[in-house]
Amino acid sequence: MGNTFGHLFRITTFGESHGGGVGVVIDGCPPKLEISAAEIQGELDRRRPGQSKIVTPRKEADSCEIISGTFEGKTLGTPIAILVRNQDTRSQDYDEMADKYRPSHADATYDAKYGIRNWQGGGRSSARETIGRVAAGAIAKKILQQVAGVEIVGYVKRIQDLEATIDPNTVTLAQVESNIVRCPDSECAERMIEKIEQIRREGDSIGGVVECVARQVPWGLGSPVFDKLEADLAKGVMSLPASKGFEIGSGFAGTLLTGSQHNDEFYIDEYGKNRTITNRSGGIQGGISNGENIILRVAFKPTATIRKEQRTVTRSGEETILAAKGRHDPCVLPRAVPMVEAMVALVLCDHLLRHQGQCHTLKSEQMEACGEPASS
Amino acid sequence: MGNTFGHLFRITTFGESHGGGVGVVIDGCPPKLEISAAEIQGELDRRRPGQSKIVTPRKEADSCEIISGTFEGKTLGTPIAILVRNQDTRSQDYDEMADKYRPSHADATYDAKYGIRNWQGGGRSSARETIGRVAAGAIAKKILQQVAGVEIVGYVKRIQDLEATIDPNTVTLAQVESNIVRCPDSECAERMIEKIEQIRREGDSIGGVVECVARQVPWGLGSPVFDKLEADLAKGVMSLPASKGFEIGSGFAGTLLTGSQHNDEFYIDEYGKNRTITNRSGGIQGGISNGENIILRVAFKPTATIRKEQRTVTRSGEETILAAKGRHDPCVLPRAVPMVEAMVALVLCDHLLRHQGQCHTLKSEQMEACGEPASS
Amino acid sequence: MGNTFGHLFRITTFGESHGGGVGVVIDGCPPKLEISAAEIQGELDRRRPGQSKIVTPRKEADSCEIISGTFEGKTLGTPIAILVRNQDTRSQDYDEMADKYRPSHADATYDAKYGIRNWQGGGRSSARETIGRVAAGAIAKKILQQVAGVEIVGYVKRIQDLEATIDPNTVTLAQVESNIVRCPDSECAERMIEKIEQIRREGDSIGGVVECVARQVPWGLGSPVFDKLEADLAKGVMSLPASKGFEIGSGFAGTLLTGSQHNDEFYIDEYGKNRTITNRSGGIQGGISNGENIILRVAFKPTATIRKEQRTVTRSGEETILAAKGRHDPCVLPRAVPMVEAMVALVLCDHLLRHQGQCHTLKSEQMEACGEPASS
Amino acid sequence: MGNTFGHLFRITTFGESHGGGVGVVIDGCPPKLEISAAEIQGELDRRRPGQSKIVTPRKEADSCEIISGTFEGKTLGTPIAILVRNQDTRSQDYDEMADKYRPSHADATYDAKYGIRNWQGGGRSSARETIGRVAAGAIAKKILQQVAGVEIVGYVKRIQDLEATIDPNTVTLAQVESNIVRCPDSECAERMIEKIEQIRREGDSIGGVVECVARQVPWGLGSPVFDKLEADLAKGVMSLPASKGFEIGSGFAGTLLTGSQHNDEFYIDEYGKNRTITNRSGGIQGGISNGENIILRVAFKPTATIRKEQRTVTRSGEETILAAKGRHDPCVLPRAVPMVEAMVALVLCDHLLRHQGQCHTLKSEQMEACGEPASS
Repeated sequence: MGNTFGHLFRITTFGESHGGGVGVVIDGCPPKLEISAAEIQGELDRRRPGQSKIVTPRKEADSCEIISGTFEGKTLGTPIAILVRNQDTRSQDYDEMADKYRPSHADATYDAKYGIRNWQGGGRSSARETIGRVAAGAIAKKILQQVAGVEIVGYVKRIQDLEATIDPNTVTLAQVESNIVRCPDSECAERMIEKIEQIRREGDSIGGVVECVARQVPWGLGSPVFDKLEADLAKGVMSLPASKGFEIGSGFAGTLLTGSQHNDEFYIDEYGKNRTITNRSGGIQGGISNGENIILRVAFKPTATIRKEQRTVTRSGEETILAAKGRHDPCVLPRAVPMVEAMVALVLCDHLLRHQGQCHTLKSEQMEACGEPASS
Repeated sequence: MGNTFGHLFRITTFGESHGGGVGVVIDGCPPKLEISAAEIQGELDRRRPGQSKIVTPRKEADSCEIISGTFEGKTLGTPIAILVRNQDTRSQDYDEMADKYRPSHADATYDAKYGIRNWQGGGRSSARETIGRVAAGAIAKKILQQVAGVEIVGYVKRIQDLEATIDPNTVTLAQVESNIVRCPDSECAERMIEKIEQIRREGDSIGGVVECVARQVPWGLGSPVFDKLEADLAKGVMSLPASKGFEIGSGFAGTLLTGSQHNDEFYIDEYGKNRTITNRSGGIQGGISNGENIILRVAFKPTATIRKEQRTVTRSGEETILAAKGRHDPCVLPRAVPMVEAMVALVLCDHLLRHQGQCHTLKSEQMEACGEPASS
Repeated sequence: MGNTFGHLFRITTFGESHGGGVGVVIDGCPPKLEISAAEIQGELDRRRPGQSKIVTPRKEADSCEIISGTFEGKTLGTPIAILVRNQDTRSQDYDEMADKYRPSHADATYDAKYGIRNWQGGGRSSARETIGRVAAGAIAKKILQQVAGVEIVGYVKRIQDLEATIDPNTVTLAQVESNIVRCPDSECAERMIEKIEQIRREGDSIGGVVECVARQVPWGLGSPVFDKLEADLAKGVMSLPASKGFEIGSGFAGTLLTGSQHNDEFYIDEYGKNRTITNRSGGIQGGISNGENIILRVAFKPTATIRKEQRTVTRSGEETILAAKGRHDPCVLPRAVPMVEAMVALVLCDHLLRHQGQCHTLKSEQMEACGEPASS
Repeated sequence: MGNTFGHLFRITTFGESHGGGVGVVIDGCPPKLEISAAEIQGELDRRRPGQSKIVTPRKEADSCEIISGTFEGKTLGTPIAILVRNQDTRSQDYDEMADKYRPSHADATYDAKYGIRNWQGGGRSSARETIGRVAAGAIAKKILQQVAGVEIVGYVKRIQDLEATIDPNTVTLAQVESNIVRCPDSECAERMIEKIEQIRREGDSIGGVVECVARQVPWGLGSPVFDKLEADLAKGVMSLPASKGFEIGSGFAGTLLTGSQHNDEFYIDEYGKNRTITNRSGGIQGGISNGENIILRVAFKPTATIRKEQRTVTRSGEETILAAKGRHDPCVLPRAVPMVEAMVALVLCDHLLRHQGQCHTLKSEQMEACGEPASS
């Protein structure tokens, strides 16, 4: 049951990095949304390998096919299945890993849990699995945009100790996409790219922090007490490969302030709306969105698979040395940006639908239109 | 549906801070576990108000009653309902809050979402809701202890900028409970207590970090890809009131290392077991436990309700000033320790049961004993 | 996890027939619904023991308390916990059953599954468990009535071979409640009552069929493919104690017709609405409600616990004879009527909320009002 | 969310009758089960169109591909995605149905619910959707067979008023497959075939009853109270297209007996096992399997789509006449047999895994083997 995420807008991903392919089934997408394979492909292209010199050089088009759930360009309200075939599978690069566990990778634990694993390219633990998430996220983004004008923008905030200066309230997708590291602080981006190239030459890897903002989120999303919006966001992004930490709003730094320094005081803005002066809450109070920008950060560790020699053990319990072959990302951050955006979109979209169900059902003007056939 | 947590070991909490009471229904507890109200009460006493001079002085015994699910001191395999009546409810302290939203509290968002709220004591958003979690956590802990010897120990790692030195691999519950701030570094604990008392006198509040370790966790718990163990742990603790950040293992600091520095190399220990030399993974790799200690940290912001004056607005949209009356925690950390432990226990217990279901069903020797009546 | 029912309107019941009490937690009830303990009590009184000479003479007031989820007479959108304490517990009547399994009861299977059971009064398998369902059903009925004017009326259609003549399209609650057997065909009701009294004198039991109609159900409820409306209704009523069969619309008899005889032809009525001339579909086509009356039937077997002697075995595997003591229903049908109504209401209410979530979210006029705070 | 079934063994189906294809994702299948596309194809061939003269003459090979979840012929414990491409799609046969609603079909209700539908071949409401169920059922059957020797055999019990004589305790798959109507009473089968051919010639359709038995089911499967085994079986089969009724064990006929006639008395058999003399319970007591054969029946109405003229209405609300073109089953029963078997297998397999999780976790000898890596 671990391969399904969401309740009313619910996705199930499938697929190993080597084998027939990877994909997703989306259940609960509202009907009559215009959606095309091209739109989804646009998001997939942001996460595919081979897109630049600082990511893995594997060549995979990651070309998607919508198998079901649409008709004449619109969603039917039925499950949307999206399939991406696997292509560039040089599994011989992984031969050594059939027997040797990569340190800090999923090899040993999958073997322990299941007693079997597809060792080619990491199998199910490969980041290829996130293709399904990004495809589904493209649809969630469109719903959010259409219903409430929600904008979700993620970007690389930090690579190792290189921290960028970015205003989450104004940053644009165009700025993010203006360089290959997806850091809208162009001066810092250059140093990041240099650093990643140097690390790649050393056969090593590095990590960093992705920040993501969701703007124009309506008040009221989130379901206390366990399904608080920040709890579901945390689960969403902590389920991404290589993530090690999560912060909402002020995060860990907020623990250094006193309450009187930290609290977001309210005021009434020029349009008569209830707003907060500051936004240390990160757009969520009591687990529910408050109309301010939702801002979160995710820590990604350095990639586990490196070319440097490391001590490890074999399946049969002998100590050995491994220097990984194959083509690996020296830094997952540039490709992690669309993944984080997708998880944020999926969480918000699910809570949007849930909110409609729980909180708007008693308003009778909505039932009038409920399920009347087109003919009446 | 936001009030239920877990799949096979599943809890549903209920109750507002003012009203009939608070509690929990636990569905999926294995049968024949010995459990008593006294054992549960022991955990509840660690989180109840009035337990020391640095927490809220409200006087509530938080005395629990097991309504169902046990017989002659043992669990039946049926739902265990636990009820704690509300007692010390000086709701007049909250009269002002019926109309004025507390900054950074859930008042405004609950009103926005539901159009109604129980403003007495925060209603459902009160930390009283966690009584049900702690009660359920007591049972989860016992199952984990009995099945695999799992020990879960939480403690205060940091109050504002006062950081303690604690070895998660050896720290004991007795050390944690040796002082009222629940910080096993006794020298640092003294300074923390002093700091909290000072802040209380100022009518302000502070936050900090709780660290929690789970030792003796068996290999194999966690369900890729969305229900990775760290993802469910993140959701669990980020659903606690006032939490703003989560880290597993190396967390945010791990992003400063290279892969060759960060990776946990494997070796074979003296008992022939596969172990890691370091534990930056925090006991989880690929979403699955690897037998090492699970170590996580949670950031708690300073309490929102303070006696200092703050700008805010009323329900009807007028700007005003609020200086909260009532008896509030100047720092939630000491009482948050059992809450974090409970969430960790609930996640591990749920995954333990799920693992049995998915990964052990095909082993025929287990089915032999499956559901044979006592008489045969 | 077997003690929870529903997705957006979700109930969890708890409690054994002997012990602290029984009850329910309702999660997902929309906010601001007016509801009182008295209204719920009205439904509970229809299912309580001791209400007439043809049901079990046990004396239990089944008096309910709303523990949480309401404030000043209205729902908060938070979990509604309802508790009914157990009272008249003559457990000595059950002493023999601690050791002897009642034929066709749950005694032997609970023992086999859990290795332990509360043998007093059937424990969790007692029909007392349905108290929580009926309480929750009272709230579901009110939502359905308020949102769409839905009326749900159940009644006894048949006792053994005594079949009543009732028009489901016009039958009223008052007619159902006009006699103690809850059969609105008063002539047949008299014969049913006579039959039940005779069977009781013989120390035996009988069964029959409950029919239930839901009128004014809006078009569009039900979620293909697994959560078809009739599938969820079937699950709901087949989870009631003693149920052995389910029919929707034409049911088993419909299999004797040809397609041209069975199909419900469409026409446009005087208000321009799409209607069907006949209603063999029972108000559901393709798993989705079509605006016609939903009509279903449930078969209830004769009560398992009887005073007549029967062959059985003991826990320790010895053959023996059992003649049950205690006070049992000779026929569950009169008390099953409110249980069936409750399950129908719960299913419809859950699908109403789900439909709002999935199918109405894209209509922008609804989002305008989404979660705006009261002050703006 | 209506396209997912099961909890621990959980399937999600997708696909319309016309479009890219149909399929299923199976989440929760235990690892290391040997499975091949050929085995799955065997079951699909039993439900495919064109298999005999009494079913629809559409020519579709329904050839399946396993996209993910297996490696070297064994399951990985990861999601198993199975895809069947659509082929023989003469959508022009459906042109008329783009505008005219078929009586008693899903056309009008899908339009009412979603405001859009794929009218080609019924889209998502087509019986093609069951391909995914049957494929998943093949795997569930294999698990059940391997773990506990469970045998599931379905067959046509009745076509209109032609009722067969079959002993559920001994009937074999070979007997079922010995004729094209899947009725193991060969004399009756001949009359059924004749009847179906005659009805087809008339452009009409007929229904009937499928009976299904599961033998060697272990004691203890089923989760009171809502997830009683019969409740989940009822939901499973009532979610199949065209089903109108469900019975377990004695069913509706059982309501004509008294308790002393109906109860299944216990005895101890020659192996010391607790058994029942009769089996009116149909293998389930109190929602839990009791080791006796599980026997259920499902009523299927006559197919809605017929060539005879019927009154209906158009999308735009005008009355009209429809005589369906296209190639339709005059009787769904022969092809419904593998569908019913699949749903029974899915329910039993899910409960088998759940039972392991809830009831076997406390037995320490099982934890010893839990998740130890292969190397230790």
